[in-house]
Amino acid sequence: MARPRKFDEQQVLRSATEAFWTSGFAATSLDDLMQATGLGKGSLYGTFGDKQALFQRVLDGYCADATADLHARLSGPESSAATRLRALFHAVAAAGGIPIPQRACLLAKSTAELAATNTEVAAKARQTFTTIAELLQAEVEHAQATGDIPADRDARRTAHHLLAVLRGMEALTEAGMDASVLRDAADIALEAAGLTAT
Amino acid sequence: MARPRKFDEQQVLRSATEAFWTSGFAATSLDDLMQATGLGKGSLYGTFGDKQALFQRVLDGYCADATADLHARLSGPESSAATRLRALFHAVAAAGGIPIPQRACLLAKSTAELAATNTEVAAKARQTFTTIAELLQAEVEHAQATGDIPADRDARRTAHHLLAVLRGMEALTEAGMDASVLRDAADIALEAAGLTAT
Repeated sequence: MARPRKFDEQQVLRSATEAFWTSGFAATSLDDLMQATGLGKGSLYGTFGDKQALFQRVLDGYCADATADLHARLSGPESSAATRLRALFHAVAAAGGIPIPQRACLLAKSTAELAATNTEVAAKARQTFTTIAELLQAEVEHAQATGDIPADRDARRTAHHLLAVLRGMEALTEAGMDASVLRDAADIALEAAGLTAT
Repeated sequence: MARPRKFDEQQVLRSATEAFWTSGFAATSLDDLMQATGLGKGSLYGTFGDKQALFQRVLDGYCADATADLHARLSGPESSAATRLRALFHAVAAAGGIPIPQRACLLAKSTAELAATNTEVAAKARQTFTTIAELLQAEVEHAQATGDIPADRDARRTAHHLLAVLRGMEALTEAGMDASVLRDAADIALEAAGLTAT
């Protein structure tokens, strides 16, 4: 009979996520991971495989959480699709523009560091970006159904533009760009989608 | 009398750029830099300071080249500002969408890896993004002068939106997103600026 695991796998993944998120894949050593998780090499790699496999588990979990969060923001009967889209873009704009640059989104950071050489990371990034575009497209279609976005707008193309603006706002936030720059980008993106910026 | 340097500083910087660009700051060791440049530690650090200082020189050079390249694309009397803006966005869209994800822009990569913890990198990123926004704003104003963009458009806000779309397209390109997604983002961004997409 296998000896039962003495640790909480989800807690270990959260700790590993913090370590990778702070330092990136390459700069996070096995020692860092052992210290962050409180596990020895045997338990860590015995459970998750090697550093690459652990990182992929971390990235998969992060992307699942990020798309679930976006889905939650873009659903719910308590407001209209138009209101939810505006709230999303204004929240992302407001998250930037603080004097101290923020830690980059783990997906952005991992893609920048690894996608060119790691096909699994690139595939996860594409899958996540595609899911985000689909969620945005569905929301544009909801706003069209209620007349908040003109019916002749191409929802799919509109979603692709909104996706690019969201990822661009993330990139500008990483550098600590001024909030007004992000707000301008958000407002014009919403107007381009056919929404008024109110 | 100081012994003359026996190496070409610009060539050394180009080699160091390649090394940092491929692997990122943290994952590039002194050994990697010595191998890439063909210099020993004494020559390398004696000339450029430590790894951090060498990296900053590399990033400064990269950003100077990138803004000079953008300035060249967005000037020249041989075409109109409207044509040059369209050409820029379509070129950036076409650079993505190839089956193999591309190496991320060094500025994007460095910002994602370091800006949250390295104020010099964050400042360089902000300065570069601000310069890009200024170049875009000037081009929008040129297009307004020739009537290709409506005069009532706010050139500065328009430039902030175009900046976000450019950086978003870069982020999507890193992941190898489909060319059609990038083209949709580019075309709607141009339309939002008041340009027809032709």
